[in-house]
Amino acid sequence: MKDLLLRACHDRRRWVTCVRMSQKAYAAAGVDIDLGNRVKASLPRLLASTRRREVLGQVGGFGGLFALDVKKFRQPVLVASTDGVGTKLRIAFAMDRHDTVGQDLVNHCVNDIAVLGAEPLFFLDYIGTGQLQPGVFEQLLRGFAAACRENHCALIGGETAQMPGFYQAGEYDVSGTIVGVVEKASILDGKGIRAGDAIIGLASSGLHTNGFSLARKIFFEQMKLHPGSVLAELQGSIGDELLKVHLSYWPLIQAILKKFGGGRDIKGLAHITGGGFIDNIPRMLPKKCDAVIKKGSWEVLPVFALLAAHGGVAEAELYQVFNMGIGMTMIVASDKADAALRFIRARRQSAWCIGEIVRGTGQTKIV
Amino acid sequence: MKDLLLRACHDRRRWVTCVRMSQKAYAAAGVDIDLGNRVKASLPRLLASTRRREVLGQVGGFGGLFALDVKKFRQPVLVASTDGVGTKLRIAFAMDRHDTVGQDLVNHCVNDIAVLGAEPLFFLDYIGTGQLQPGVFEQLLRGFAAACRENHCALIGGETAQMPGFYQAGEYDVSGTIVGVVEKASILDGKGIRAGDAIIGLASSGLHTNGFSLARKIFFEQMKLHPGSVLAELQGSIGDELLKVHLSYWPLIQAILKKFGGGRDIKGLAHITGGGFIDNIPRMLPKKCDAVIKKGSWEVLPVFALLAAHGGVAEAELYQVFNMGIGMTMIVASDKADAALRFIRARRQSAWCIGEIVRGTGQTKIV
Repeated sequence: MKDLLLRACHDRRRWVTCVRMSQKAYAAAGVDIDLGNRVKASLPRLLASTRRREVLGQVGGFGGLFALDVKKFRQPVLVASTDGVGTKLRIAFAMDRHDTVGQDLVNHCVNDIAVLGAEPLFFLDYIGTGQLQPGVFEQLLRGFAAACRENHCALIGGETAQMPGFYQAGEYDVSGTIVGVVEKASILDGKGIRAGDAIIGLASSGLHTNGFSLARKIFFEQMKLHPGSVLAELQGSIGDELLKVHLSYWPLIQAILKKFGGGRDIKGLAHITGGGFIDNIPRMLPKKCDAVIKKGSWEVLPVFALLAAHGGVAEAELYQVFNMGIGMTMIVASDKADAALRFIRARRQSAWCIGEIVRGTGQTKIV
Repeated sequence: MKDLLLRACHDRRRWVTCVRMSQKAYAAAGVDIDLGNRVKASLPRLLASTRRREVLGQVGGFGGLFALDVKKFRQPVLVASTDGVGTKLRIAFAMDRHDTVGQDLVNHCVNDIAVLGAEPLFFLDYIGTGQLQPGVFEQLLRGFAAACRENHCALIGGETAQMPGFYQAGEYDVSGTIVGVVEKASILDGKGIRAGDAIIGLASSGLHTNGFSLARKIFFEQMKLHPGSVLAELQGSIGDELLKVHLSYWPLIQAILKKFGGGRDIKGLAHITGGGFIDNIPRMLPKKCDAVIKKGSWEVLPVFALLAAHGGVAEAELYQVFNMGIGMTMIVASDKADAALRFIRARRQSAWCIGEIVRGTGQTKIV
């Protein structure tokens, strides 16, 4: 029954109740009996650190409550997305470092709704594991909370399922759901995109959360490296490189939309995740346009150069599996591209004009 | 890289893009190449079946969009909850039946926010698996969609992470997030609960989604049964019994709140999940009241009688692990209890007056 206790516990509103009843049960289940006390000490502070004024205090304790500020909107549209971090978790296990994947998860979700112009409101996590390790749990939560704070997003709920036999010892899976809001008339739908528009690429920090199955195969099977291996091309170990946190572009996107006007000059955004440029840019591309991405127009990070040099993978596949150094693309009216680039770079985000929109059939072409 | 393809696929808005690119990759990854076509055929119909008028069409395809009808509210409060179905999944695996756990997940989430008086708006799922089995995926989705329809809740997003090595062959984990809405002034916060109020219990269908680790131990280890075993006390096999779908009480709660008035006559609700009466009723109980639950005041389902007779478990533990036949409790002004019971039973939901509120310290007592 320990799964029940811990599952009930992870809804942080229920924490006090849970700790009260669970000392005996934890012990019987072989779970670190200090868990309650340790997490009890740090959890409220972590959660409070992500609080927004719209979050209501504890009522009942079954669900997280968020009072939408309807005065700010003519027609608020809620935007929701669920995601995981995939096999990047294997790197976290190998490095025994778990806060960064917590941040990855939040930032990935934030970017997925930011491309529609949506402001993140709140986030809920799910952790599935065999046996909960308090230190791992705390690191994950610390990561969620840190990224939520950076995105001004409240961590209002979550669930930890402790299910013996489902996961291998020391392993877990994690997923999260973000809910944000955008004014209906301000949804970035890409409708204004025209031939001649510029494509600005925002630098990624590394692989973000995509391509890990292939990257692990190349680094750890083909190149016989291990997560602690240090290569001259990289600062730090391969493990450090691969754990680099998925960037959130929301603070920058919010600022640039405010400055330039969403839909008018900033016409569309695409989060470069699984499927790379090829699959993600067409999500916002009108059917009569193609996006032409020019290789060599941006600085490819050393990690991608390594993967390209040692992977034996066709170039086309690299561009479909990895972000290749560009985590977000932005379609901008051509006469505003230089000003947008200056604005972005002034905020210490590397960015380049990496291509343009031409007449076509709704596809991405890499030339 | 198959995890990438499938993860991108499961956001159903991305499905068409995904199927286009993935035939070769699926084949290389050893995944049933018919998956795309089969799911492509059934998925849009399933999702469309859960559609509400507030759901906006595909825009970009990164997030699900829901236009909140702000005219209906003075101060809308969003209520969100994430949950899983725990080790009930082991029964689904053993029975190779996956639609019911899909329904369980949605209904569990719906009940968790219904206790605050919140109407479900939309739901997103997460499926973590080693290798996606198309038939299992379809059954899960069919279950999500069926329960979403019954609760008038839109299935607007989801994610399937195919992560080889994380899950055992044929296994998966599943979690879901619900977002609902309630008028701020109508939140059921239990503040009006007073000594003398009646506690009405609504019958569960069985174990719902709690107590499965203990139930499996009793039935399959202590009693040496297997999921196909048929006992005289039960209709159908143990497996059928254990897979019975977690009831959603939202349609009934919505009707009774409309009829009797939330907060006034219907003063508080508690979803009886992990922790049973003991942990769940106090979530809405004022600190100066106790809830007294009277054993024997309702019909205990045969499955609980079996667990009690053969489990060798202390009675107090049974009431803390299992719902014991009551899936939802409702605190009602005593002079309205009979009318409320008649109203509930007229809707073919078994219910009993199972106790009362007395002066106390915010605890549940089972007598």
